[in-house]
Amino acid sequence: MRRTSRDIRVANRFEVLRHIVAARGESRSVSRQQIATDTGLSLATAANLVGELLDLGLLVEVGYQDSNGGRPRALVSINPDGGRLVGIDVAETYVHVEVFDPALTVLASVEEELHPEENRPEQVVRHIVSSFEAANVDPARVLGVGISVPGQVDTDGGVSVFAPNWNWHDVPLRTLLAGELNLPLYLDNPLRACLVAELWFGAGRGRQDVVVVNLGTGVGAGLAFGGELYRGATNSAGEWGHTTLVVDGRLCHCGSRGCVETYVGAPGIMQNLRDMAPTSPMLHPDDQTATIAALARGVAGGDPVAVKVVTETARYLGVAVADLINLVNPEVIVLSSWVAAQLGGPLLAEVRAVVDRHALRRPRAATDITLSALAGNPVSLGAATFALKRYLSALRTPLRS
Amino acid sequence: MRRTSRDIRVANRFEVLRHIVAARGESRSVSRQQIATDTGLSLATAANLVGELLDLGLLVEVGYQDSNGGRPRALVSINPDGGRLVGIDVAETYVHVEVFDPALTVLASVEEELHPEENRPEQVVRHIVSSFEAANVDPARVLGVGISVPGQVDTDGGVSVFAPNWNWHDVPLRTLLAGELNLPLYLDNPLRACLVAELWFGAGRGRQDVVVVNLGTGVGAGLAFGGELYRGATNSAGEWGHTTLVVDGRLCHCGSRGCVETYVGAPGIMQNLRDMAPTSPMLHPDDQTATIAALARGVAGGDPVAVKVVTETARYLGVAVADLINLVNPEVIVLSSWVAAQLGGPLLAEVRAVVDRHALRRPRAATDITLSALAGNPVSLGAATFALKRYLSALRTPLRS
Ligand SMILES: [Zn+2]
Ligand SMILES: [Zn+2]
Repeated sequence: MRRTSRDIRVANRFEVLRHIVAARGESRSVSRQQIATDTGLSLATAANLVGELLDLGLLVEVGYQDSNGGRPRALVSINPDGGRLVGIDVAETYVHVEVFDPALTVLASVEEELHPEENRPEQVVRHIVSSFEAANVDPARVLGVGISVPGQVDTDGGVSVFAPNWNWHDVPLRTLLAGELNLPLYLDNPLRACLVAELWFGAGRGRQDVVVVNLGTGVGAGLAFGGELYRGATNSAGEWGHTTLVVDGRLCHCGSRGCVETYVGAPGIMQNLRDMAPTSPMLHPDDQTATIAALARGVAGGDPVAVKVVTETARYLGVAVADLINLVNPEVIVLSSWVAAQLGGPLLAEVRAVVDRHALRRPRAATDITLSALAGNPVSLGAATFALKRYLSALRTPLRS
Repeated sequence: MRRTSRDIRVANRFEVLRHIVAARGESRSVSRQQIATDTGLSLATAANLVGELLDLGLLVEVGYQDSNGGRPRALVSINPDGGRLVGIDVAETYVHVEVFDPALTVLASVEEELHPEENRPEQVVRHIVSSFEAANVDPARVLGVGISVPGQVDTDGGVSVFAPNWNWHDVPLRTLLAGELNLPLYLDNPLRACLVAELWFGAGRGRQDVVVVNLGTGVGAGLAFGGELYRGATNSAGEWGHTTLVVDGRLCHCGSRGCVETYVGAPGIMQNLRDMAPTSPMLHPDDQTATIAALARGVAGGDPVAVKVVTETARYLGVAVADLINLVNPEVIVLSSWVAAQLGGPLLAEVRAVVDRHALRRPRAATDITLSALAGNPVSLGAATFALKRYLSALRTPLRS
């Protein structure tokens, strides 16, 4: 209840733009009247905010719409030439850069591999900078850069607080990058980036209570409650990968034992394979990507070891997903990131079966469990939406007095 | 964004009353100006809502306050004679009824024991009715009755959907009670009732992200995000007692295995004792209350078996509390209900030690873990606040045109 009028104005400005951006794929233009109806704002407020966004060049006027004999209504749409947003997904095995227009349509995409031993801050910074340069975007047109790094992030300070898989503690990433990329940089993590991508464009659209489960090298969950990203007290909510699945189980990078991540993250799945078939040709001991890809091919070809590894992985993942259903009672759980994309349908089917045995009936019946259907890289997309939000928040307000 | 103006008015009406009620224990009277400042409402809106609450007899004018040479400000306060609220805590081992004034001060309190075999719906209904009658409140003065029953509840339908410890499925409790108690009845569960009690009057006051862990026969968690109770998609969020602590572990009433509840609920703690010392005189096989009380006395007296049982229980509970910290990143976790009250300080100390080993450092440092400090029965208190909220929501709006 204690939001200031500035907070409310910034939130409404963002909400109007979000509404128009999220209409992507449907009608690409909208009237001020429709915006007011859809957002619950008064027509005067909606028109005023649309005016601001026109002044900023984020919207353009695109013509008129009949209104059943009344005065034709002016239509606005996102301006595809209205500046650029950059979303950078820094993962354990790659750096992925995407350039977007203000409608968050991808204009360019660059990926560089990261080798597991290349995890010192200055090495990662070098890859971020070189892949940004390879994306070939005019810095003068960039409104903001969103950067996702694994682990816990101090967003306001621009610091990677703890990245367990790299053993990073309090790395001042924004400061390290500032000399190289003289642009507004916004740091966050893949859990929250994926959540926001699903909420705007994916299975979370129009839903209130959403969980996006991120299955990569690390694992975690992005959470939305009441239709909004939930961050928790210190911006570290969603560390589901470090909740305990097996008391006194496998040792985890975080210092605890039996964490979900040690059974269903890419290295955990490799361990499941090693436990079952230590000499399997699918096992590439130093290459997570190759191992997961080999498993995916194995499952598709009916290889019994591959099928068994996926079943065993789903046995753990299904229990941990059932825990999310029982605790959070969401409308949808989306399986996202590269391991989910690779193991896809077979993993999903097994997970659903395990969840059916472990979750309470009523919340289970209310939860749709699905694979991410977003094209492209959801982490880059989410990181770019954070940059857009930050850009709008940083403007003086009101723009028109 | 799609709330109607009626929704907003009802929410603001409740918020103003909540603000004045929650001032209990501090200044007991407040000016319209102060309400406007504290809630972020305009003075005109605050004054209008105060007028409504005066008309309803929930507030009274109590005099004037100097305002530094300006016009003295009229003060209002909760009217202790303004109707009665009843909160009924139906637990597995007792029915507890409390009568409150509109400031939620307890006026009367009645408890009847429930024996484990007395769990058929008609038996439970009989105890609810007889303890309500023993509380001796004039029905004509009752604004509403909040009833908390264990398990999953369909609040709108007044149905107990699933109470695992009683094996209840879809019991239409409100209909069964309606013939006996011809009053507005509001059904919910102890997780949410305790959460709201802590949020208004306990360790959750003024905090945004709060978890109340309920340790009784069943266990679960009440959740608040952004300062508001979180219900989830089907009003069953918080079933933390049925998240898995041990894959393939102890069989649970819910049909799953290894649930948190089977290790740290009262019957689970009895099992911990039985596993360790099957012939212990502290073990009362058919009496949870007596066994937990004996353990509490044992720990206080330094009995090594009792100490070991509490340590073992805390080993499980601490891991499950660390999971809540990692996933939810709350500001405070409150241990509530009768088992927490009985085992108290010794359990809390052990739990904190286990959490320190299992939770991530940053969210751990931000979380206060504490025992409930509420006097009286928090479930009855929370149930009565639900009844108050329901009473205010059901009124036509605006009351003054
Ligand atoms: Zn861990
Ligand atoms: Zn269970």
